[in-house]
Amino acid sequence: MEFDPTTHPHRRYNPLLDEHVLVSPHRTKRPWLGQTEAPQTVIPPQYDPACYLCPGNSRSGGQKNPNYTHTHTFTNDFSAVLPGPAPEAPAPPHPMLTSQPVHGGCDVIIFHSRHDLTLAQMDPPEIERVIAEWTRIYRERGSQEGIKYVQIFENKGAMMGCSNNHPHGQAWSLSDVPTLPARELTSLERYSLSGVQTSIDVPRGPQGRPCLLCEYAHAEINFGEENSRVVLKNEHWAALVPWWAVWPFEIMLLPYHRHITSLARLTEEEKAAFAEIISQITTRYDNLFHCPFAYSMGIHQRPIPGPDSPNDDDSVAHLHVHFDPCLLRSATVKKFLVGFELMAESQRDLTPEQAAERLRNCSATHYLRSNA
Amino acid sequence: MEFDPTTHPHRRYNPLLDEHVLVSPHRTKRPWLGQTEAPQTVIPPQYDPACYLCPGNSRSGGQKNPNYTHTHTFTNDFSAVLPGPAPEAPAPPHPMLTSQPVHGGCDVIIFHSRHDLTLAQMDPPEIERVIAEWTRIYRERGSQEGIKYVQIFENKGAMMGCSNNHPHGQAWSLSDVPTLPARELTSLERYSLSGVQTSIDVPRGPQGRPCLLCEYAHAEINFGEENSRVVLKNEHWAALVPWWAVWPFEIMLLPYHRHITSLARLTEEEKAAFAEIISQITTRYDNLFHCPFAYSMGIHQRPIPGPDSPNDDDSVAHLHVHFDPCLLRSATVKKFLVGFELMAESQRDLTPEQAAERLRNCSATHYLRSNA
Ligand SMILES: [Zn+2]
Ligand SMILES: [Zn+2]
Repeated sequence: MEFDPTTHPHRRYNPLLDEHVLVSPHRTKRPWLGQTEAPQTVIPPQYDPACYLCPGNSRSGGQKNPNYTHTHTFTNDFSAVLPGPAPEAPAPPHPMLTSQPVHGGCDVIIFHSRHDLTLAQMDPPEIERVIAEWTRIYRERGSQEGIKYVQIFENKGAMMGCSNNHPHGQAWSLSDVPTLPARELTSLERYSLSGVQTSIDVPRGPQGRPCLLCEYAHAEINFGEENSRVVLKNEHWAALVPWWAVWPFEIMLLPYHRHITSLARLTEEEKAAFAEIISQITTRYDNLFHCPFAYSMGIHQRPIPGPDSPNDDDSVAHLHVHFDPCLLRSATVKKFLVGFELMAESQRDLTPEQAAERLRNCSATHYLRSNA
Repeated sequence: MEFDPTTHPHRRYNPLLDEHVLVSPHRTKRPWLGQTEAPQTVIPPQYDPACYLCPGNSRSGGQKNPNYTHTHTFTNDFSAVLPGPAPEAPAPPHPMLTSQPVHGGCDVIIFHSRHDLTLAQMDPPEIERVIAEWTRIYRERGSQEGIKYVQIFENKGAMMGCSNNHPHGQAWSLSDVPTLPARELTSLERYSLSGVQTSIDVPRGPQGRPCLLCEYAHAEINFGEENSRVVLKNEHWAALVPWWAVWPFEIMLLPYHRHITSLARLTEEEKAAFAEIISQITTRYDNLFHCPFAYSMGIHQRPIPGPDSPNDDDSVAHLHVHFDPCLLRSATVKKFLVGFELMAESQRDLTPEQAAERLRNCSATHYLRSNA
């Protein structure tokens, strides 16, 4: 009996997080009996007087938004971390029960003054302004005392717990590198020291060492179309459903021509191509089920260099963006991370190759525009 | 400024999973603007002719349930893993892209013939029958060729993606140890070899070495009431909100008198006390917001011993149960694992100490009984 990844249950290894995902491809035909979500059918207005993110409106903290015309950033009125200095940690009640104070700040980045324009509906030059804002925050927060990491992310859709339709993201800046980026950095470091470089063509990381993500992106781009997990690529960026994807239509977006450590190192041309491909990914997502596609998006990049870091590019970090969408098979059926997944291991039915193919086949024109 | 864990943002270390959780206790008062869930207000019938788990009814696969009177176990009609032997894995397309075939089986365990009886409403002797069934499955599946782990779990409530109200759990048996139990076992092993034994009274693991969970349970029970995270305890078991809890009202349930590796090693007395405390935990959960409380529950225990394992008790595994409930502040407000949590680190507002206190203060009598 020959192994067929579209039929036989298997586990795939995720070299970035050093964990596995259980793939059950034979199960894609099982009927759905669980909870469904209300589809978002109302087209939002361009301006909503009740929205605390729209220009000129008041927020719950009492502050008033300026009459901004493109992006606007402010400190979250209910930040999860607060400015330093934080008090010293007390002695642990038991050697194994340790805690550490954390400080930092939480920013909210409104993507556009228009209440109804998601990234999928914004033109690439408008998305470039969002990228510029992310880059500014990464630099500015990174220059503050003790900040070690700037986690930029977006929750899109009520299904992802997002409380406001007005397109916006967040940036949490912390005095420590959080768990998941830290785990990725450990893997990148390990690969750099002992990893495989399969071809002379693959870009290299610091000190000419191999980079896990340079190597991975290069491999995916050079596989035959037939087994490809690449959804989209342009001159600088590749968007792919990773070999180890957990979410049905998960995408990793990364630069593949050179080892780029952070937003701060992107050239103007790379930024323009970045905006272009974000537009294309989010458009295909919306087109997949003809709905505003719910996801969490996050940018992973290098931690803030310490005062003794000599070379700004001397980091194993390889800039990349994760898109984790929760929709499973239609606009109203959501994947739940529960049970076996919470207790044991991530699990998926559809294979990453099947997901990539479905996304590749989505139209490049947003369904709301083509309907018009 | 003195550190106050109920006021100052901090990170706590989880020694079992080797990761951190971000605690933002100052944020517990932030208003909730997000999605709410429909409360489950209908009292289900004792028998539902449309339920595929009720006695005598037909399942979607066409099979008919027997007229069982207590528990009933059958193989899932849409199992995530299938019986072996699995075909050989193909050569990886790139050295970093590895996969492995997996085989096993997925069982469904109906807790009771009555459609309306959750664990919270079952009498402890009925819960003992469920424990007996879990133990039987652990032994039987564990005796099958190549099975290395039996993951027992329950999803309760539509919010947890559970498609059927009839109280039931699952057991997925696999030819590999899944990611999270494997990570816990690595930590238990590390602690065993280099860990701290704080007192002569603490039970020990194999070869007289310290056990992370024996040590942890002992410490929690001996802290003063004031800082305690213990919710409930009886002669053999302790239920506590772990120092590193992620879910607002997360509970870990574990035996604290001796190092017990699996369900198969419990004495009759320990099983009776186990049933008793499961009844008490689930009752308090339902009483917290006066609703059927949604959670995922999972049992972690020793992997199946290989043919060359000489001593059945020579494992660092310490039997324990995780309860991960998704409700945040009422019967209709759910915690979302999104954004920062998916991309960076788990985060909570309410401290584990505050959660434990609220659960301790819940009535021991189920609200549906006290209303009667
Ligand atoms: Zn990443
Ligand atoms: Zn565990």
